[in-house]
Amino acid sequence: MSEGLLVLQSDFGISDGAVSAMHGVANSVQRGLPIFDLTHQIPQYNIWEASYRLLQTINYWPEETVFVSIVDPGVGSDRKSVVVKTKKNQYIVTPDNGTLTHVYKHIGIKEIREIDETVNRLPNSGESHTFHGRDIYAYTGARLAAGAIQFENVGPILSLDSIVELPLKESTLENEVITGVVDVIDSPFGNLWTNISRLQFKQLEGDYGDSFKISITTDRRTIYESTLVYGRSFAASQIGVPLLYINSLDNIAIAINQKSFADTYGIGTGINWIVTIQKVEKVVYN
Amino acid sequence: MSEGLLVLQSDFGISDGAVSAMHGVANSVQRGLPIFDLTHQIPQYNIWEASYRLLQTINYWPEETVFVSIVDPGVGSDRKSVVVKTKKNQYIVTPDNGTLTHVYKHIGIKEIREIDETVNRLPNSGESHTFHGRDIYAYTGARLAAGAIQFENVGPILSLDSIVELPLKESTLENEVITGVVDVIDSPFGNLWTNISRLQFKQLEGDYGDSFKISITTDRRTIYESTLVYGRSFAASQIGVPLLYINSLDNIAIAINQKSFADTYGIGTGINWIVTIQKVEKVVYN
Amino acid sequence: MSEGLLVLQSDFGISDGAVSAMHGVANSVQRGLPIFDLTHQIPQYNIWEASYRLLQTINYWPEETVFVSIVDPGVGSDRKSVVVKTKKNQYIVTPDNGTLTHVYKHIGIKEIREIDETVNRLPNSGESHTFHGRDIYAYTGARLAAGAIQFENVGPILSLDSIVELPLKESTLENEVITGVVDVIDSPFGNLWTNISRLQFKQLEGDYGDSFKISITTDRRTIYESTLVYGRSFAASQIGVPLLYINSLDNIAIAINQKSFADTYGIGTGINWIVTIQKVEKVVYN
Repeated sequence: MSEGLLVLQSDFGISDGAVSAMHGVANSVQRGLPIFDLTHQIPQYNIWEASYRLLQTINYWPEETVFVSIVDPGVGSDRKSVVVKTKKNQYIVTPDNGTLTHVYKHIGIKEIREIDETVNRLPNSGESHTFHGRDIYAYTGARLAAGAIQFENVGPILSLDSIVELPLKESTLENEVITGVVDVIDSPFGNLWTNISRLQFKQLEGDYGDSFKISITTDRRTIYESTLVYGRSFAASQIGVPLLYINSLDNIAIAINQKSFADTYGIGTGINWIVTIQKVEKVVYN
Repeated sequence: MSEGLLVLQSDFGISDGAVSAMHGVANSVQRGLPIFDLTHQIPQYNIWEASYRLLQTINYWPEETVFVSIVDPGVGSDRKSVVVKTKKNQYIVTPDNGTLTHVYKHIGIKEIREIDETVNRLPNSGESHTFHGRDIYAYTGARLAAGAIQFENVGPILSLDSIVELPLKESTLENEVITGVVDVIDSPFGNLWTNISRLQFKQLEGDYGDSFKISITTDRRTIYESTLVYGRSFAASQIGVPLLYINSLDNIAIAINQKSFADTYGIGTGINWIVTIQKVEKVVYN
Repeated sequence: MSEGLLVLQSDFGISDGAVSAMHGVANSVQRGLPIFDLTHQIPQYNIWEASYRLLQTINYWPEETVFVSIVDPGVGSDRKSVVVKTKKNQYIVTPDNGTLTHVYKHIGIKEIREIDETVNRLPNSGESHTFHGRDIYAYTGARLAAGAIQFENVGPILSLDSIVELPLKESTLENEVITGVVDVIDSPFGNLWTNISRLQFKQLEGDYGDSFKISITTDRRTIYESTLVYGRSFAASQIGVPLLYINSLDNIAIAINQKSFADTYGIGTGINWIVTIQKVEKVVYN
């Protein structure tokens, strides 16, 4: 590895010294190691969102990049600390608590190893057992990125079957209606990102300018139901008007041009937030 | 360029993966390229503030620094994607939507080129047309900073006259009264930064300790009117007491020592927030 | 110094251009100097927290690292601008207003020098006297980190006795009751970090699983009183249940597993927030 890259993600926020302690540990491993923060604003304990943000970004980083993700409500429990090598030759250092869900499914994992803490723990890191982010994950991630250890030195191989996965729901196409879920909110803009891919959507044979009936339901309540135009980008709608578009992950998204769709209609995320899409006659405004 | 520098600004916030995707793209262009974040907390769609923050910082960066600014409510419209070279030999990569206003006026622009997206777009960036920050701006900025392309390779030269400018209001001095506007709030402290320069203020012949009558009006309503002392710094006032001072951009500012002036009096920004300053007899407290 | 490291801390927030102006100044001193942000979210004017965050992180950074801390409500007053060399050979550049309190007490300071602003001030930094962070501290810190000046070139030596210290309260053990204070909240999780060290706590001869009576009082009002179990980590408690544990600074902390203790009970920080701990019979749930 000519020059390793270390990318950190957590739910620690950026108001105290936790992130800087990890930066310091990494610089103690190798002075000037290039370190980047994916985000430290994952909502506390929200493993789903940690998993999603990894998927959102990982493809834009070079091979060999080392990601460290610490959303770790089970710190100190028997959840395993692991490093995986993805099918695109990147590394993720994380508690194995569901954080690997999206990358495992959409990119693939070649191999998973459990961190052997007897050798891969910050020397003299004391009797604290609450900050594995600093003492184990950042330390191990930095040593991998710096080439101080190889993947093989992390610890013993685990079975890929042992990877903890959060429940995912696949979108379906039936009777010309696509049914999917709201995966995540595109903060701070408030657009809804669904799990419906562009390729699946294309099966409805819609073009820019065509109209689609959208419904959003949760717990069998209908929260939103309307006919939207499919646009190339926000500018296809007037300001304040909702639209359907392809987001930057190549999935279907729903937005209001220059306004938060999520806030306006009180939309949440997860497998209980169901979105349906159906092509309808083109709306013509006379 | 020995070592390029890339500085990113946006209204994306730092809670999701958007900024990290841009960091990744830049590292894919050149591993370890020095990347800095100006801010990603520009209020959504606020082009004025994006323009102002560039002016606030650009002079403190070395020549050849490449700035990428993405506040882009018109993504997907016919607004142009451009790179400019300033009179101080720095580069700004941005949608041409008014973001260049302050730098154009106060620093000057030598040349503007439209980004030729047929060659300057992230390879395989797919059918998404909503994240030009990642696919066009960060990619082009990183290639410029890394020396992978030269300014001449960006695309065709445009006329300087074509640069989109937001309306600016100049401060005036008439009958010993200066009239200006509140340009921006100095967050998080809540000080008001005006467009009145120190040089113009000096024409009122005030010294530290002198008193000035200040009024702030909007829509012809007077929001604040009082006599303030001109101080060298906040410490010239007691805690909780307002004062007039020269801010870090060499303009007149109005503050309350250790309290937010903007919040206390509900002050906004823009050309409808008028400030007048007039020298008065020195206030003597007996 | 092979490769200097510069770590910045302030109460400037990250919404405007202040931090980026400092990054630019540092890059103007040496292009590509490794710069890290400890945090810029110190609550405005809160010198105590600035002091604490330095202590929280400094031990995790290599020798020779240069820290710049700017929480400076007295900018423009006669408070001194200083650089100290710690007993572990790191540097802190700061207004001497109490920011050095915790590092001085817990790590130690070898030498303190006052910044001679006639030579250590950003050239052409104008008539502004409100942004020493940019014009003096970041500039001097970057020059130290880059090796452009040595510690001896900062300015004249001051007496260690002159260091401004905030009042600290030491925890005490009397009649098998430890009395300490809440030093800081572990944001964003809301755990209480006390000034009671693990070593002192060990004198109560408690083991994981033992029970302790905790009280939290302020202004002689009891805010919280309960019996908690001492756990190795959060996972020792069920979700929603409070516990006692050793935090990442090797001090006693109080938390609710996956909930904010500080928000739930309205706990503040400082020497008026008194915590007592006393060992009691083990709680057995039948």
